[in-house]
Formats: sequence, structure tokens, C-alpha cells
Amino acid sequence: MNINGERLWASIMEMAQIGATPAGGCNRQALTDLDGQGRHLLAQWGAAIGLTLSVDRVGNMVLTRPGTDPSLPAVAMGSHLDTQPTGGKFDGVLGVLAGLEVMRCMHDANIRTRAPLALVNWTNEEGARFAPPMMGSGAAMGLFTEAEILDRRAIDGARFGNELTRIGWRGEADPAALQKLGAYFELHIEQGPALEALGLSIGIVTGSAAQQWYDVTITGREAHAGSAMAGRRDTLMAAAAMMTATEAIVLATGGEARCSVGRILPSPGSRNVVPGETWFSLDLRQADAASLAALCEAVTAKLHDIAASRGVALRLEKFWDFPKTPFDEALVSRVRQAAMQRQLRHQDMPTAIGHDAVYVARKLPTAMIFVPCHDGISHNEAESITPAWATSGCQVLADAVLATAGIA
Amino acid sequence: MNINGERLWASIMEMAQIGATPAGGCNRQALTDLDGQGRHLLAQWGAAIGLTLSVDRVGNMVLTRPGTDPSLPAVAMGSHLDTQPTGGKFDGVLGVLAGLEVMRCMHDANIRTRAPLALVNWTNEEGARFAPPMMGSGAAMGLFTEAEILDRRAIDGARFGNELTRIGWRGEADPAALQKLGAYFELHIEQGPALEALGLSIGIVTGSAAQQWYDVTITGREAHAGSAMAGRRDTLMAAAAMMTATEAIVLATGGEARCSVGRILPSPGSRNVVPGETWFSLDLRQADAASLAALCEAVTAKLHDIAASRGVALRLEKFWDFPKTPFDEALVSRVRQAAMQRQLRHQDMPTAIGHDAVYVARKLPTAMIFVPCHDGISHNEAESITPAWATSGCQVLADAVLATAGIA
Repeated sequence: MNINGERLWASIMEMAQIGATPAGGCNRQALTDLDGQGRHLLAQWGAAIGLTLSVDRVGNMVLTRPGTDPSLPAVAMGSHLDTQPTGGKFDGVLGVLAGLEVMRCMHDANIRTRAPLALVNWTNEEGARFAPPMMGSGAAMGLFTEAEILDRRAIDGARFGNELTRIGWRGEADPAALQKLGAYFELHIEQGPALEALGLSIGIVTGSAAQQWYDVTITGREAHAGSAMAGRRDTLMAAAAMMTATEAIVLATGGEARCSVGRILPSPGSRNVVPGETWFSLDLRQADAASLAALCEAVTAKLHDIAASRGVALRLEKFWDFPKTPFDEALVSRVRQAAMQRQLRHQDMPTAIGHDAVYVARKLPTAMIFVPCHDGISHNEAESITPAWATSGCQVLADAVLATAGIA
Repeated sequence: MNINGERLWASIMEMAQIGATPAGGCNRQALTDLDGQGRHLLAQWGAAIGLTLSVDRVGNMVLTRPGTDPSLPAVAMGSHLDTQPTGGKFDGVLGVLAGLEVMRCMHDANIRTRAPLALVNWTNEEGARFAPPMMGSGAAMGLFTEAEILDRRAIDGARFGNELTRIGWRGEADPAALQKLGAYFELHIEQGPALEALGLSIGIVTGSAAQQWYDVTITGREAHAGSAMAGRRDTLMAAAAMMTATEAIVLATGGEARCSVGRILPSPGSRNVVPGETWFSLDLRQADAASLAALCEAVTAKLHDIAASRGVALRLEKFWDFPKTPFDEALVSRVRQAAMQRQLRHQDMPTAIGHDAVYVARKLPTAMIFVPCHDGISHNEAESITPAWATSGCQVLADAVLATAGIA
């Protein structure tokens, strides 16, 4: 069965109209009106080929196609339709619409599988408007309670549960029912430069890196910007020293080690006042739990040293801890098999980035397929891929799913 | 004539009730309702001792007491009643209410001066809600046009002119009329630790340091927080490196060199997105124009080096340039004389901090008197001084003003 790359591309471009930004990207954040519009378009496309829609209590959408053996658990594909505030057209969307394209091809060719097939659009993968990310898959896999998800507050103050109801996508299904899927495949852009640089079109993802998220709060003393340098306890300068020291440790560590600070807030935030308090977010990642623990220990020790030497108080709160998650060997080898049979240049690789598949892998056999993106750019309006990459990824997804579900 | 230290202290405490914060500080930002209330209280106190109130078109309040020789220009005292968002009870307020106390004593003792006396409450000295600081004195001295002041936007988006009218303090006097004052004295807390550390109660301010304010904008590339370190063009990490490098240059320079970053804004400001653009404010100060130019040149060169080595674009915009301003030798020596005669331990010193007196000094003979503040803390709710320091400063102010205006 050969997928229709042109139809896939056209659907991606049509979805990208919803929340399109002037710079060519997408702003379709979780539980906004635009998210609701994107969901409606997907539901409409699913209905057109006879898929059954079910929505659960945290808003995850599941589109199902029956198999010939109702005793078998469904083989699922999926990803997410929500984006970053200045996101691209492909992150998440490719995985959802490639799953749709697989279903469309089977519909056109009247192919029946033994196991049912399912396509999942997970709620709030990005974590931009509501932290943390991957809420829908996390809730489904039992990592968060429904109540804690529904009570989360957006950066804009809105409550998750209220926004979900407001946009009309609070369903009645039990999210935990998704733990009964038989397998899960997710196609995604790499969000890094490796595949393109190596001239490969498929990444066989073997598992995810470990990551920890911290809140870092520094307390010193407000002072006038003209006050003597000697007596200062400047919290923003302390934060700057902590950030550069963390970066230096991560660069010296090399490999899969990563650090990012996405938000920083000095207080009181006046031009001519030395900030008396500064808060920043810190995201640390490593290949596995042991190496991440070592990295976090080195960074924490360094941050405390800096705080002590600058006479400021430091509070480090770990509020998200994400272990290394290996994917299912059988499914991963089915992806590898498909890439080989289609003669697509490929390579095994881990991911340092969180995905719904990483939560799903805690409960179900899971695999991921990466395709390149230009210059490794993502979470950015300039994010771009070629139609050929999208087609290759979708084809490998189709082959691996069919091999798993079995043709009737 | 001996001033009444208890009355001065009681007035400061009464004014501090307007915008009092739970932590014991004051939040009475320029052109807020609370600023209006502070102004009314001062006007009421002035009226009680027969002072004439005039308000100009940028909101500067002038309370006048006639002299016996109407041909002489007025000898003025003053400072400001507005505060930082988390400011203290004394910064600015001490200078205004000490001036009031001088007038009250003369009223009580029925003392007439040859020259008229004036007490000025300058609009928006702090520059916290509306940048830049010292707007009222700057406008009066012709450094800003009235139109440009009235059109400034607050951090909260409000227009200066509209807010001034809204709180009822847009007057009809010409701000430039203040250029015809004969002399200007300002008493202020030191906002640094030197006087207290040296056991002195009076600082004889000889002039102000030079300062420049910059907007620094760094443009790189947004990326996912899991993307490889190697390909990143992380603007917040670049900003951190720029801040620590600037601080290192300033510390190595020593003396009167200062640097402060009060505000920083990474974009898009999402926890798991490497910021593609970061803006921060940069405030650089030095003893005089030549040394400030050398400092700015060293910092600018370093910032460009860092930008180049990190593959990010740098835009440095200087939006405020403030030259070194020496005070008037005759008035400064009158302040020194008063401190000596009252047997108060004192020392000559420059100020690295901008004050209304520094703008006024461009047009009029000007002097400033500093009193200590505990631990050098200011622009902070913990700002504190002793009643004895307030009394000493006010006494020196009274003596220097009487010596200048002449007793009839």
C-alpha cells in the first residue's frame, strides 16, 4: 500500500491555515478557539472516511477504524495539533495527519486489518499555554490525575477544565481506556539537525532522554542602580552567572546533555533598580537517569557556590522529573524493517525531546519515526520540511502499522 | 534657627501612610491616585503656613514664600514625592518635607528672608512607571519638550498627559519659569553605604557622575529545548554572557564605575523553547564623561565579540546620555560651612545616582546634601534612616538656604 504524499501535504497546508502567522508559522495553542477549529477539521476528515470519534474527559480525540478481529487491541498512531505561540506547521501536525493519510489509503483501497486502528490527537502536548507539556497523554497513562489536569492554570490565568469546556471538547470517555491500546506509533519531525546533516530521511527512535525541570529563585537585595558595586546582592547578575556556568557544564559534558532557560523574571523590573529577586526556569536533559543525576548534581553544586559567593539566597525546586524511556524493541525493529524495505536511508537515534510517545511508552509497546527538518529548526515559524520527507515518514508509518495490525 | 526634628519625622511618617506597603515601604508611583493624594497632603501643609501653590503643565508643584526684596530670584529647595514600586519612605520625601520644615520654622519664628523661598515637588523623579526618570525637572530645565513628556507611555500603557490630567495635577504654569530660580538645594538620602560606614552624618555632594542607558536587543533563533547544543543561537544565554562580562569589566575598572540590568525579556518566553530574541536594559555609570566613554567602548566591544562568537545579532541603542554635572562651588561651600558650624561629621563626595538636582544644575547654581541610610539600602521597602540623620540634614539645609536667601 503506497500512501498519497500529495494529499498528505495538502492536508498539512490546510490545517496550517488555522492559526497561520504572518511569518509562515502557526499559533494554535492548546484549548484556544483555534485549537477547537483544528480539532473540528480533523473530526470532519475522519467522518468522511467513516472513522468513529471518541473524546475523553481531558480532551484527547480518538478516531477508530474497526478490524476484523474485535478481540484484538487497537494499533494506534497519533501526535498533537496544538502548537507553540510562534510554532511551525509540522511539529505534531505531521504525525496526526500522516495517521489520517494511512487511514484514507486503507479506505480508498478497501483494506481491512485484523486489529482495529486508532488515530489519537493528544491534548496540550506543547505545554506552552498550560505547563507541563504532554498533559493529555500523561493523564491517559495515569501520570497525572484528571483533577490535577483540569485545575491547571494557563499563563493567561484561565483554568484548563473551563477552557476545555468552553471550546466544546470536554468528552465523556475515560482517558485511562487508552492504556488498553495494543501498540502506538508516532511520526514526528526530528527537531534537530542530525538527519539532514547526514543525508538521511528516516530516524529510528530507540527511546527518550531523561529530563528535569526546575524553578530557580534567587533572593538578594534591591538597590539603586547608582549604588556602589561592592555592597550589591544583585540577583539578576547572579542569575546570569548561574546560566553561563550551567551552559559551560553542559557543553563540557557533551553528548546528549542539554540546558535551556526559556523564562526569566527579575523583580521589581525597573530599569534603574538592581533586582532584589529573580526567578528563572531551568530545563536539564541527559541520555539516561544516571548521567542526568550527575549533571543535575554538578549544576546544583555550582549554582549554590555562585549564590554563596554573591551573598544571595538560592531556592531550587524540581517540579518535573522525566526518566529515560526505551521504546519497544519489536515495534522499533518493525519501523527499521519498513525503512529498509522502502530503501530509505535511516539511522537509530535517541530523542532528547519529550513526546506523547514517551509517556505512552510507559504503558504500551511504542515506537517513533523521525523525519528531518531544515537546519534542525522547530518551535519556530521558520520550521520547514520537504514533501518528500513527509511522504517517506508517512510510508514507513503505514508499513509498520500494517505489519503490526495484520492485513485481514 | 533650629529646625524641629520631631515635626519633620512625624510628617515623613504621615506621608508614608499614602501607598504604605505591608513590608514597611511605599508604593506611590508617579501619576497614580496615590501620587495625587501625596500631592494634596503637601499642598494642604503648605497652605497652613501661607505658602502660595503654583502647578506647571508637567505637574511640578512650587510652594512659594515671599521675600522682602521682590527683585531677587527665589532660593529653592525640593525633591520628589513619587516612589519606586517597592520603594522606601525617605527617598525624595525627605528632601521635600525637610524643605517644608524649613518654611514651617520660619513661619513659627516669623523670620523673613530677603529673597523669596520656593519648595518644589518634581514630577516623576523615579522613572519607574514612566521612563526616563527626572521628567519634571528635565522638562523644566529644557532637556525634554513638554510634548514629548506628555506623550510618554507608562509600563502599564497609560499616557503621561492623560494620567496627569486624570489625577488633577496638570497646571497652567510654564515649567521653564523654574529656570529663573536663583539657587536650588536638595537634601537626599545617600543611597549608598559610605557615610554610615565612615560614621559621618552629612555628605557634601560635589556633583554627579555621568551615565548612559542602553536598550540591548539580541536576535538568534528559536529552537526546542531538546535540540542539540551545537547548533543553537540561544539569545538568553548570550544575554547572560553579556551581563557577566559587563559586570567583570565594571568590577575591574573599580572607582565610580557601575552597571545594572533591571529588566530582561526573552521571547517567546516558553519554558521549553530556546529564546529566539532577548531584550534587556543596561545602565552604565562613571565618574566623568571621558571615563564613561572608555567604559562604554570596552563594554560595547565585548558585547559585539560575544554576539559574534555565538552567532547572534546585536543591536545596542543608547537612549539616554547623561553628562557629568559639577555643582555650584559657592553653594557647595555654604553647605560645607553649615555642617562645620553645626559640628556634624561630613565629607565631600560625588553621586553616581541621578537626582532632580543634577538636571537643575545644568541651568541654576545647585547643591545637594546627603544623609546616611542604613546599609546603603534604597529603592527598597527596607530603606531606613534615623531621626537624628534626618534632623542633621534638615538643619544643614536650613542654614545653607538662610545664608543664601539672606535674613531681612
